[in-house]
Amino acid sequence: MSDKNIPFTNYLPDIVAPEEEEESYVDYFYDEPGSAPGTLNIEEDATPSTIVLIDYTESKATRKVLPTPDACHPYLESQSVSWVDVQGLGSEAVLQRLGDVFKLHPLLLEDIVNVPQRPKVEDYESQLVIIAWMVMLNEEKEDPDDEAFISEQVSFVLSQNYLLTVQEEPKHDSFDRVRDRIRFNKGTIRKYKADYLAYALIDAIIDGFFPVLEEYGEQIENLENEVVANPTPKTLGKIYKIRRDLLALRRAIWPQRTAINNLIRDGSDLITPEVRIYLRDCYDHAIQVLDMVETYRELAAGLMDVYLSSVSNRMNEVMKLLTVISTIFIPLTFVVGVYGMNFNPERSPWNMPELNWYWGYPMVWLVMIAIALSLIFLFWRRGWFENFSSVDED
Amino acid sequence: MSDKNIPFTNYLPDIVAPEEEEESYVDYFYDEPGSAPGTLNIEEDATPSTIVLIDYTESKATRKVLPTPDACHPYLESQSVSWVDVQGLGSEAVLQRLGDVFKLHPLLLEDIVNVPQRPKVEDYESQLVIIAWMVMLNEEKEDPDDEAFISEQVSFVLSQNYLLTVQEEPKHDSFDRVRDRIRFNKGTIRKYKADYLAYALIDAIIDGFFPVLEEYGEQIENLENEVVANPTPKTLGKIYKIRRDLLALRRAIWPQRTAINNLIRDGSDLITPEVRIYLRDCYDHAIQVLDMVETYRELAAGLMDVYLSSVSNRMNEVMKLLTVISTIFIPLTFVVGVYGMNFNPERSPWNMPELNWYWGYPMVWLVMIAIALSLIFLFWRRGWFENFSSVDED
Amino acid sequence: MSDKNIPFTNYLPDIVAPEEEEESYVDYFYDEPGSAPGTLNIEEDATPSTIVLIDYTESKATRKVLPTPDACHPYLESQSVSWVDVQGLGSEAVLQRLGDVFKLHPLLLEDIVNVPQRPKVEDYESQLVIIAWMVMLNEEKEDPDDEAFISEQVSFVLSQNYLLTVQEEPKHDSFDRVRDRIRFNKGTIRKYKADYLAYALIDAIIDGFFPVLEEYGEQIENLENEVVANPTPKTLGKIYKIRRDLLALRRAIWPQRTAINNLIRDGSDLITPEVRIYLRDCYDHAIQVLDMVETYRELAAGLMDVYLSSVSNRMNEVMKLLTVISTIFIPLTFVVGVYGMNFNPERSPWNMPELNWYWGYPMVWLVMIAIALSLIFLFWRRGWFENFSSVDED
Amino acid sequence: MSDKNIPFTNYLPDIVAPEEEEESYVDYFYDEPGSAPGTLNIEEDATPSTIVLIDYTESKATRKVLPTPDACHPYLESQSVSWVDVQGLGSEAVLQRLGDVFKLHPLLLEDIVNVPQRPKVEDYESQLVIIAWMVMLNEEKEDPDDEAFISEQVSFVLSQNYLLTVQEEPKHDSFDRVRDRIRFNKGTIRKYKADYLAYALIDAIIDGFFPVLEEYGEQIENLENEVVANPTPKTLGKIYKIRRDLLALRRAIWPQRTAINNLIRDGSDLITPEVRIYLRDCYDHAIQVLDMVETYRELAAGLMDVYLSSVSNRMNEVMKLLTVISTIFIPLTFVVGVYGMNFNPERSPWNMPELNWYWGYPMVWLVMIAIALSLIFLFWRRGWFENFSSVDED
Amino acid sequence: MSDKNIPFTNYLPDIVAPEEEEESYVDYFYDEPGSAPGTLNIEEDATPSTIVLIDYTESKATRKVLPTPDACHPYLESQSVSWVDVQGLGSEAVLQRLGDVFKLHPLLLEDIVNVPQRPKVEDYESQLVIIAWMVMLNEEKEDPDDEAFISEQVSFVLSQNYLLTVQEEPKHDSFDRVRDRIRFNKGTIRKYKADYLAYALIDAIIDGFFPVLEEYGEQIENLENEVVANPTPKTLGKIYKIRRDLLALRRAIWPQRTAINNLIRDGSDLITPEVRIYLRDCYDHAIQVLDMVETYRELAAGLMDVYLSSVSNRMNEVMKLLTVISTIFIPLTFVVGVYGMNFNPERSPWNMPELNWYWGYPMVWLVMIAIALSLIFLFWRRGWFENFSSVDED
Repeated sequence: MSDKNIPFTNYLPDIVAPEEEEESYVDYFYDEPGSAPGTLNIEEDATPSTIVLIDYTESKATRKVLPTPDACHPYLESQSVSWVDVQGLGSEAVLQRLGDVFKLHPLLLEDIVNVPQRPKVEDYESQLVIIAWMVMLNEEKEDPDDEAFISEQVSFVLSQNYLLTVQEEPKHDSFDRVRDRIRFNKGTIRKYKADYLAYALIDAIIDGFFPVLEEYGEQIENLENEVVANPTPKTLGKIYKIRRDLLALRRAIWPQRTAINNLIRDGSDLITPEVRIYLRDCYDHAIQVLDMVETYRELAAGLMDVYLSSVSNRMNEVMKLLTVISTIFIPLTFVVGVYGMNFNPERSPWNMPELNWYWGYPMVWLVMIAIALSLIFLFWRRGWFENFSSVDED
Repeated sequence: MSDKNIPFTNYLPDIVAPEEEEESYVDYFYDEPGSAPGTLNIEEDATPSTIVLIDYTESKATRKVLPTPDACHPYLESQSVSWVDVQGLGSEAVLQRLGDVFKLHPLLLEDIVNVPQRPKVEDYESQLVIIAWMVMLNEEKEDPDDEAFISEQVSFVLSQNYLLTVQEEPKHDSFDRVRDRIRFNKGTIRKYKADYLAYALIDAIIDGFFPVLEEYGEQIENLENEVVANPTPKTLGKIYKIRRDLLALRRAIWPQRTAINNLIRDGSDLITPEVRIYLRDCYDHAIQVLDMVETYRELAAGLMDVYLSSVSNRMNEVMKLLTVISTIFIPLTFVVGVYGMNFNPERSPWNMPELNWYWGYPMVWLVMIAIALSLIFLFWRRGWFENFSSVDED
Repeated sequence: MSDKNIPFTNYLPDIVAPEEEEESYVDYFYDEPGSAPGTLNIEEDATPSTIVLIDYTESKATRKVLPTPDACHPYLESQSVSWVDVQGLGSEAVLQRLGDVFKLHPLLLEDIVNVPQRPKVEDYESQLVIIAWMVMLNEEKEDPDDEAFISEQVSFVLSQNYLLTVQEEPKHDSFDRVRDRIRFNKGTIRKYKADYLAYALIDAIIDGFFPVLEEYGEQIENLENEVVANPTPKTLGKIYKIRRDLLALRRAIWPQRTAINNLIRDGSDLITPEVRIYLRDCYDHAIQVLDMVETYRELAAGLMDVYLSSVSNRMNEVMKLLTVISTIFIPLTFVVGVYGMNFNPERSPWNMPELNWYWGYPMVWLVMIAIALSLIFLFWRRGWFENFSSVDED
Repeated sequence: MSDKNIPFTNYLPDIVAPEEEEESYVDYFYDEPGSAPGTLNIEEDATPSTIVLIDYTESKATRKVLPTPDACHPYLESQSVSWVDVQGLGSEAVLQRLGDVFKLHPLLLEDIVNVPQRPKVEDYESQLVIIAWMVMLNEEKEDPDDEAFISEQVSFVLSQNYLLTVQEEPKHDSFDRVRDRIRFNKGTIRKYKADYLAYALIDAIIDGFFPVLEEYGEQIENLENEVVANPTPKTLGKIYKIRRDLLALRRAIWPQRTAINNLIRDGSDLITPEVRIYLRDCYDHAIQVLDMVETYRELAAGLMDVYLSSVSNRMNEVMKLLTVISTIFIPLTFVVGVYGMNFNPERSPWNMPELNWYWGYPMVWLVMIAIALSLIFLFWRRGWFENFSSVDED
Repeated sequence: MSDKNIPFTNYLPDIVAPEEEEESYVDYFYDEPGSAPGTLNIEEDATPSTIVLIDYTESKATRKVLPTPDACHPYLESQSVSWVDVQGLGSEAVLQRLGDVFKLHPLLLEDIVNVPQRPKVEDYESQLVIIAWMVMLNEEKEDPDDEAFISEQVSFVLSQNYLLTVQEEPKHDSFDRVRDRIRFNKGTIRKYKADYLAYALIDAIIDGFFPVLEEYGEQIENLENEVVANPTPKTLGKIYKIRRDLLALRRAIWPQRTAINNLIRDGSDLITPEVRIYLRDCYDHAIQVLDMVETYRELAAGLMDVYLSSVSNRMNEVMKLLTVISTIFIPLTFVVGVYGMNFNPERSPWNMPELNWYWGYPMVWLVMIAIALSLIFLFWRRGWFENFSSVDED
């Protein structure tokens, strides 16, 4: 069998991932209080685990789908770089066996399986463990209320000659370009060891935050216009949702930044100085992501203030309209009410003599027009009418 | 007598705990200013103290209820691991005697008895002291105004061969699963010394925060809908209560995180390196709890902003309705008032000749309908009617 | 003369303290800019200084009121512990002489006399100086506008065999229980040196914050109900006052916490390791105080948000009432206005024929009742009437 | 010529300072981007520079106005302490020559002349440079809108035997008391070297913040009453102005605190340990200033909240009045409108028979009085009238 | 060819920069996730790259436009200082070749070309790399909605004898004065090596922030008046825009301050101690910029509060006017309504006898005038009319 003939993408035809509902709040996994450490928790609807092996040297790259973790053994012992990519957390037996084959500490296996855990780096003697969170735009989003992004835990176990990665979901990942770089020998990836591969994947994860942030940048820009021109209760919901999502993103990137920094500073011998320079670049990107998240958070908080002020402005406009109309017509209505009274003018010359004046009715109109005009002039001088139009223009 | 026959749960039939009112604010215990240090303060309604001993080696586990602290002596001297669990702080003599048997420093005994104290770790030469706060969902909650969680101090005194724990209340704890792991020899707990037992209990305490937080997560999610769709003054009270409770939770978890970190870093010889790895895992959980608390606090603060804006929006809607109705009818009422005046048309041709016109009355109606329609058209163009419906839909 | 016969309390019959107005803001004392350092500032209405000496060994305790600082000399040289307690800062000559007898640095004497200074610890070779702030509930409070607590500077000068304390006011202090512990040889206080005495007094000062905080805790709890059920402008003033007072308390406890920490860490030889353990306990209490102050500050800030929202809610209720009444009656008033017009029905059949219809008047009533009912139905469907009652219930 | 005959004050008869407008924002001086470092920028309206020398030993003090910087030479070389005080930054030639005589680094001369710079301490080998900001109450303030304080840069160059100070303005400074202490040999100032003089001046600068802060303390206290009792739009402007000024004060004191701390910790040999003790005292004062600034800032922020709430409360009161009046009179106006209709009672017995009833008119009055009273009773039960009076009382 | 004849400015006649839209948010450049590091991204509309060489010794300065990077070789090897200034990022071949000639690490070249990157300093053995952001006032701004400033990345590669700078855009930079200082041998720039040149350029970049900040200072000052005197919805938009821009400026200056600090502290041998003193000055300026940005941010946040309060005040004024008018006229309208009723006075002496009184009509007027005056008196006593005028004055 020639491995070259297998298509080298991530999507395997025989796996149909269940249509789970992804949550945007990454609220951590927890055991029942008091449980023994190392208990694996397999969710019922989790995708069965698939093991994909990519094995390469500078001259050659092979890709295989392995039936069981035990099939990894020959590759782990060879000098080539072996990337064992486990996709899906649904098969307890496979995951348990994986722990045995790769000699994983029970607590470590628990962290890998019981997702999500907080991103971190830990050094288990001959293995370096990295827990990371990958975020991706939700490409299946149909409804504006759907989550804008999907987040998934990826766990790395790095050793001298191999890299084990475990992903929650087989459907989505940001690694296809790295697979292509290995397959087509693009760049220098096949010249380096497993540590460079780990760097390349982490870098892909960090760079995967940028398109998500760009999406939020656009949403904020749209809201900036909406919030001044035409704020509705829906605007309020949108601002709240953006703030909540940015909070989730911040919670995802903050510990990863720390983890990468730990990799650079206190990392074990497994990472060569050359790769450390690349990780420094990746750390810069993580800081840039964090920087953008914080900026967007401040902008979103500012939008909330603007929204509140906008609503007050609109209410002011409504109140002014009511006041203008009422203030003009209430006195006039009083005036016409006066001459609707039925005092008997025949009884005394003091009883409503106006009713019998020759110019009575026209004079009342003159008086009323004078009242109305002077009130309008007063409002105009206070600049009330200007504001109406300025609101209209916006 | 065979210990195996005693049911191994925490609930002892002969103890009826008084129905105290638990408080959610953990406002610390304090002495009368100027009191001598080491004074024990026994509350009148505190539950009498019960001493439960669980003694185990890898091969065997015993459980006994001890009559007095002095009965611990043989166990403390044996090589087996002895877990002395004192439940209830109501018996001064027992607690004083406990101090003598376990050779506790008077300040330490004071911290154990005069609850609550702030969580901390202290190293008293041959003993390591840990003060922790356990939180549990209030399962007796009936009324939505009841506290959602109960918080209770647990003090640990760890030595080479024994672990002394002192709990405020016998009724509730998160330790039953640990007791089961000892009894049924699940996992590796019986292979380790007292330090692992201490870890297992602290881990159970930290994991006990998650169900409480999950409860608040759900409450926040419910409020997110309520606050936009139908905000009432009760919503306001709920948000305030959540914020207050999260503040209390933060105050409970923050010092525990620090304490566990101190255990890992500067811990005495009493904690073996192997258990230190487990504690590192427990520390990760404590950070996850803190992370969730902070996230929920930010979400709750955001909800308050949304609530305020929602109330303003509703008022806007009310004002608009008033303004629409007033602005349409006030001019019309003026018009009909005009033709209710009693000027004498016989005196002069200028006095209300309209009253005698052939088409007078229909023309007034036409004028009024024209005024009303043009006002309605103006409001419609400004989009006032759209907002009414959009609020209705939400 | 037997010292035992003198009553051992703090209140001396021959001193009448002037009824000064205490301020809650602790705004620091300052010299005229450019003054020479070491200038003593004696306020005109300050209480004359009294010197009270308590001298004790493990076996014996003596209490004396000393006429001048020079009378301290024999006690300072003896091996017994001498507590020289100077009460009142009104006698410049006494204070100057005190500086000479105790060999105080001029800057130190200035800090002691020119109150208030910021709490701190300073090490002047053979003397350890502690500036602390004591807070006490204002027991003379009559009016709710009076300050809830009194704050007073206490300066400590600790040496091997003596402790000098200087208090602003003789009337109040938190030290009577410590005096009793010395007098009646309660606890272990007479077994230790002056450093333990200093600890006991500092501990009394820190514990003195708790009753004050408890008072504020109760006030906040009362306000929590008031702010939702019946917010008035007075509520607003109360919340502001609590926030201002908590700010003052925070300013008092924060530097004391730092000072005690400095005492523990970098303290001089004057503090024995044994007392250092006690100080660690006292430091824990200071952190608890700070913790409570911060929690109360957050709760008070939350209350302000709730107050604002509550006022908005009430205004909403008022607006709704106005809108309901206006919206129902304004159209009806228009209708009756129509039939008050005086168009001449004799001139044309089109002029108000309704007036002459047989069922004219009953039909108008039917129309008006129909309008009113349909409007009421609309308001009811929007849930406006529910909110009225829900506000009433609160 | 005898120096003793020259009056020893700071105000020289031959200098008339231009009436510049002082700004409260201390927005830093900057060069045209790309300029060479060391460029001196002389403002056109700056006061010409005057050089005042005060030269003293313990036994003797001399004061001279020097014509040129070169005249300093003999004093700089003598063993006496020479304080060269340059007042006014208007004479480029003098300032350039000053740089040569005192061998100042070009960057340093730039910092001295191009004011304002941020306060700092720098160590140029044999010279210690301190940039400080002096604030003084604006005594020429006439209008409430004038700035409450004036801020001015003072630069210190300290060497073994001399102290060079450069001030922006000759008119104001806080140093007259120090000058008097030198002239009249008050305190110990003439016993010490130039480092003590530098301390005395810095201490005068720091103490100069207190009267300014006291002014703001009083303003805040006045506003606390105004904001609840009678908030007007002017109140709002005052609160904003106080916040802005406190921000400026914070910006002035914060770096000075750091600078003094640097002086104490890392200071060069030019400062003796004895003076370092005095500086520690001065550092305490700087912290007290910062403490007060922060407290006032929090109080001012709280005032803004109270202001907003107060305005809402007043609006509530206005709305209630409108609602009470409208709700009572609108139904009554409807009732009287009904009986103003002109239905023809002769046509049918159903057409307004009330008009012909014997008790018709009195009954209408009874009905209207009943409606009004029941509405008033309803409002009274809801407590609306209480609030009116409570607002009135405030 | 004589280099002296070429005009020494930055603007080259043969380059026409495309009219790109500059963005104020500096949202970082990012690669497609998973791309190989070192990929150069050339934007289509980027200006073609021009290479300008300025080569100088103390005695002589030459300026040349170089056709290819390879033409730099002779200058790089000479002892003179060579400033290679690459302007425009449009020519991939040139940039790639540049990397070869200057032996740049692929990651470094990527950072230089794929703009914007976060400002930083990195040490690549024999080269010191500085990424900086230059901000300039937007001189082409026509519309108030245009961005007030332009920001552009400048990358520095410093070696012993040369300085390579790469700018995004040839059109704008802040370096012309530095070019003049080299050309006309102003100041000491030609006496120093390339490190001083780098300092001079960085200093020009930092000083370039001041005019931009001054612009915002003026805008804030204008808004301070506008927000109290005449707040419109446009004011709100302006405040939001200032806050957003200050956020962008803060994001630009913060990392540069850190980068300069790193240069001073941990810088390589490439920077001489003498230049380090100059950099310290530059660092002070960076702190001043940051200080101003933070102050302006706080002022802008305060403006938002004032805006909200101002809007509330205006609404209050509107409500008061409505209430005054309504409260006066509604009762009067009721009164005149009463006497418009048609009760038949002939049927009974109780039916509206007032209509037939001799003084009936004048008495009604007296009653109405009395009602109006007493209401006006009440409003005047509550101070409502004062507020109207005080708002007018502002």
